[in-house]
Amino acid sequence: SEEDFNLAAIYVSDAQYNRNIYFDTSPQAVRLYMRYNHWIPKVLLYFFILVDLSLALFEDPAMFPLPIWATMLVELLCLLVFTLRLVHYAQVIPRDKFWKDPKNICIIVILLLSLVDMIIYGALKATDCYGVRWSRVLRPLLLVNVTEGRQLRRAFRSIRNALPQIFYVFLLFMFSLLIFSLMALKLLGRRGLKTIDGSPYFTNYLQILFDLYVLVTTANSPDVMMPAYNNSYVYAIFFILYILINTYIFMSVFLAVVYNNYKKYLKEEVRQLVRAKRHKMVRAFGVLQEQREGGGEPVVTHHSWNQLIRLVQPDIGNAHRELLWSVADDNNQGCIGKVAFSQMADLLNIEVITLKSRPHPLHSLCPTLYLSAPSRLLCRMVQHRAFGIVYDLIILVNAVFIGLDEQNPLIANSEWAFLALYLLEILLKLYVFEPRAFFSRNSFWNWFDTIIVVSALIATIINSSVTSTENYTSRQILDIVFILRVLRLIRVVDSIERFRTIINTLIRIGPAIRTFGQLIIVVYYIFAMVGMELFKGKVKFYTEDSSDPEKAFCGNPLLKGSEFAQLNYCKNNFNNVVSSFVLLLELTVVNHSGFATVTHASARLFFILFHIMVVIVIINIFVAFVLEAFFVEY
Amino acid sequence: SEEDFNLAAIYVSDAQYNRNIYFDTSPQAVRLYMRYNHWIPKVLLYFFILVDLSLALFEDPAMFPLPIWATMLVELLCLLVFTLRLVHYAQVIPRDKFWKDPKNICIIVILLLSLVDMIIYGALKATDCYGVRWSRVLRPLLLVNVTEGRQLRRAFRSIRNALPQIFYVFLLFMFSLLIFSLMALKLLGRRGLKTIDGSPYFTNYLQILFDLYVLVTTANSPDVMMPAYNNSYVYAIFFILYILINTYIFMSVFLAVVYNNYKKYLKEEVRQLVRAKRHKMVRAFGVLQEQREGGGEPVVTHHSWNQLIRLVQPDIGNAHRELLWSVADDNNQGCIGKVAFSQMADLLNIEVITLKSRPHPLHSLCPTLYLSAPSRLLCRMVQHRAFGIVYDLIILVNAVFIGLDEQNPLIANSEWAFLALYLLEILLKLYVFEPRAFFSRNSFWNWFDTIIVVSALIATIINSSVTSTENYTSRQILDIVFILRVLRLIRVVDSIERFRTIINTLIRIGPAIRTFGQLIIVVYYIFAMVGMELFKGKVKFYTEDSSDPEKAFCGNPLLKGSEFAQLNYCKNNFNNVVSSFVLLLELTVVNHSGFATVTHASARLFFILFHIMVVIVIINIFVAFVLEAFFVEY
Ligand code: NA
Repeated sequence: SEEDFNLAAIYVSDAQYNRNIYFDTSPQAVRLYMRYNHWIPKVLLYFFILVDLSLALFEDPAMFPLPIWATMLVELLCLLVFTLRLVHYAQVIPRDKFWKDPKNICIIVILLLSLVDMIIYGALKATDCYGVRWSRVLRPLLLVNVTEGRQLRRAFRSIRNALPQIFYVFLLFMFSLLIFSLMALKLLGRRGLKTIDGSPYFTNYLQILFDLYVLVTTANSPDVMMPAYNNSYVYAIFFILYILINTYIFMSVFLAVVYNNYKKYLKEEVRQLVRAKRHKMVRAFGVLQEQREGGGEPVVTHHSWNQLIRLVQPDIGNAHRELLWSVADDNNQGCIGKVAFSQMADLLNIEVITLKSRPHPLHSLCPTLYLSAPSRLLCRMVQHRAFGIVYDLIILVNAVFIGLDEQNPLIANSEWAFLALYLLEILLKLYVFEPRAFFSRNSFWNWFDTIIVVSALIATIINSSVTSTENYTSRQILDIVFILRVLRLIRVVDSIERFRTIINTLIRIGPAIRTFGQLIIVVYYIFAMVGMELFKGKVKFYTEDSSDPEKAFCGNPLLKGSEFAQLNYCKNNFNNVVSSFVLLLELTVVNHSGFATVTHASARLFFILFHIMVVIVIINIFVAFVLEAFFVEY
Repeated sequence: SEEDFNLAAIYVSDAQYNRNIYFDTSPQAVRLYMRYNHWIPKVLLYFFILVDLSLALFEDPAMFPLPIWATMLVELLCLLVFTLRLVHYAQVIPRDKFWKDPKNICIIVILLLSLVDMIIYGALKATDCYGVRWSRVLRPLLLVNVTEGRQLRRAFRSIRNALPQIFYVFLLFMFSLLIFSLMALKLLGRRGLKTIDGSPYFTNYLQILFDLYVLVTTANSPDVMMPAYNNSYVYAIFFILYILINTYIFMSVFLAVVYNNYKKYLKEEVRQLVRAKRHKMVRAFGVLQEQREGGGEPVVTHHSWNQLIRLVQPDIGNAHRELLWSVADDNNQGCIGKVAFSQMADLLNIEVITLKSRPHPLHSLCPTLYLSAPSRLLCRMVQHRAFGIVYDLIILVNAVFIGLDEQNPLIANSEWAFLALYLLEILLKLYVFEPRAFFSRNSFWNWFDTIIVVSALIATIINSSVTSTENYTSRQILDIVFILRVLRLIRVVDSIERFRTIINTLIRIGPAIRTFGQLIIVVYYIFAMVGMELFKGKVKFYTEDSSDPEKAFCGNPLLKGSEFAQLNYCKNNFNNVVSSFVLLLELTVVNHSGFATVTHASARLFFILFHIMVVIVIINIFVAFVLEAFFVEY
């Protein structure tokens, strides 16, 4: 029946996309579940999550201030969408499963807390009291807990499972830090040494601890060592030992432990995934199976199979479907057993590239011209290695021209020549190669080339027309033109075999990087929200042309004469969500901590916590991914 | 005959210590070779290499200036020793082998060039001309090329073999750098932006290239970004992309490539080593083999074997030797074949720990007392877990007391109590455990504890006697006392099982770190010598109490108002070999480059080259070792 086919199709589709949802198998629930999996509600959900996260741009402290009622209204709309999606989900799966699943509970709690927070905040603001939108830290957790956040949940689970091991190394590392700090206090604290700003050097144990922690991140090297080193060469030994043990050995051990554990748990997760996939396929088989005449194992007929595939993947061609069937039914029996059926989920995921040499459309249109001697010579020339080399040289010459002054009319006009040459190349290739093969899905560089060159052409034309008609150069358009010009040069990488291997390896970690990007956004967002509440307005940024006397110390008298203000770091603040993200990125690279001086010493905990979470755990996972990709490659 | 035994013993000993020398097998050469392998000439050789390397302390630019004739005399003595050692070596191995071995040629070239350099330098100095001791960069190569530098040569060979792969990644990395720099020039160069010191921002391509290279090392983050970021938030995207690609992805790829290649070639080297070892053992067997009555394979008798082992390892006990024989001759035939004989080299390297429970000497001396009820109770108490916990608590209390002010008489006197407690612990343990077992070779923590506590006792006694008699506290002795006190606390690590595992893994990479340390010294020494010639005297250091007006800019007018002088980095100079080493270490951690400003922009090449050699290649090898140790462990 149709309902059976729907049910089987859902199982297969779940197996294909690694969904692991124990939905209700009643016909109504199945139909609802099919709608639940449609791409439109999914895209809408992610759109509203994005809107919800982006609200931070408009809420206090805002990048683009909006009235409270406006942001609250949008947030209410978002919450409504999330609630609807959750109600839809609740209809799909059995009641008891729904309430047992922690991710549903999480979403409900997030929604309720957000609502409570909005009410409290609204009431406080209405009475002109101070209010904190504390529920904003919960927003990124929606990304983790929606049904589609499977990969991200897996990443978080892996991190959680790796934490005990990381924790023990961290304890040992802290012990080393405590011992070194104690030694620094005893050896250097009583010398009466002074730091460059004249304050006593290494006399406060907590200060030493913090300074040495920052030294691990290499942010304050060699500054923290200089007063001792200026006093005597001998003290350099202390710092050399410290850096060797804590920066090099311990940081490597962290990488090793994170790498090991993360991979171990991820492998376990993948194993479970494969089990769940098999289980789903067996269930789908159970729905469609028929008993063969003459007994034997139950089977699925070719006819049922065809109907199923049409439901699962309507966009698949007949030829492709028959190919899949011939792989599954390799004995040509007209039906397949359980084992062959189970492999279907993986077969469907394989992209079939039709490599049959289609004739060039021009060859069909006017064969005499296309097969004439000059046309053939042209084809041979374009396919010759020299053609590639000539264009590599053109790119190099182009690179030099880009580097020269574009105000010079000769240089400016040469751009047209280069554009013409690049267009000519694409047209020649299209003349020689079959266009659909040229623009096939895996021809990354052809797509890259064409898009860049065509965009550059359009942007250059717009730019010169704007310049000639209005006698004014638009900085934005010119920037785009420059970026496109430089990007064109990247193509040269594809000409060198060795480079191609490296690039391909890097491209293979693409999917991992996407999950990883979400992970980073979740963690950054939470730290940005907390950071904004703690530090907003403590440091002010004044534009270049401002003549405010407070500009010299970022609007905070505590920063008078500080290195932070001298280095013009005022824009490194938590005054809006964009600044916060950029600052957190800077802290990921180098954990400088000028912010501790403007509030309280305990604010350093925020920066240490951030360093532990992001650099010790998450960046190491990223490095582990890159390492793994290269270990597999070689 | 005795000569045969000598020859066989040499083969076995070569196999045992992985020596790979094709010595002459004439009896005279064998006797010379035995003398060559004696520990006294080896230690003397390393002593003179050390003396030769240390000459940099006394030569211009000197830490402790000595007249030229003095250092030259010592160097001549060193060269003489190296020549004698080489002549000895030439007597041992066949003439043609000697001249074919690149390491011998290297040493001869180093010796000759050093001599030539000394003569030229002496002549130049005698006529008051400017001279450079350029041959000093060759000195550390002696460490690599002496016969005993096998491990180091292996490390260098592995690096050389890994270089092509590293080179391709480096090219791609440079390409990325060039593209990003070009984009920065085009996007940011025409904005009229200014850096904090007022100079134009990102207008010079080479300057941009260098700045962005330094950004990869994270040394100038976020400073290099600030002018653009202060102008517009949008430019942060450029730097975020740059850091993601070049700092995170490329640096991880470097680690992956270095790790992979280094391990691959090292494995190949180890395989060759095993082959060479087997070959040596087969030759030793060939010398001693006897034909058995009744035909069959040739064998080595128990008697010959005993005589051989006595020659190879005279310090081995009878019991141990018999144990080895029983392992080799497992069928108790009184003789062993080629295969069993070949395993001997590895068997000899296994340290046999005699774990038989020897009775306590007190037990033998006065059994009635030692076995009495109170004595037994004491033994049980000391062996109880609570005893360890009590002492861990004492250590923690001690840590707090160390942190407090030692000027307070109560705190100062408490030190005696802690010392007494620690001494008591050691004495109690010696009462309970057999002393030879307590101080066995693998009881690292017992040795550690005893040495630290006894040294602390001696230092504290000396300190208090000096203080009471001369009424003056010696800073040096007090420092030692403090260091010993703090070191005592480390013992607590051994009480926690998890920590012990981590520490043991780290201890296992000890031998690798030794080779690695030599590698670092070779590279640092060469860079220090070159750096001293290029940069000596460019930056001067003035002590704290100096009132010289030039102190404010490190004695170099070019540094007036520079960040380098403001941060008081004047002691980071190349004015003597110790400063140079410390500076190079700082550059390893963070590649700041204040030095480029005092000479010429091209001096930056020195710092970039150093970064490539040390951070990209050598530090990554170190990290690879730590990673490998932990991957094997888990
Ligand atoms: Na750094």
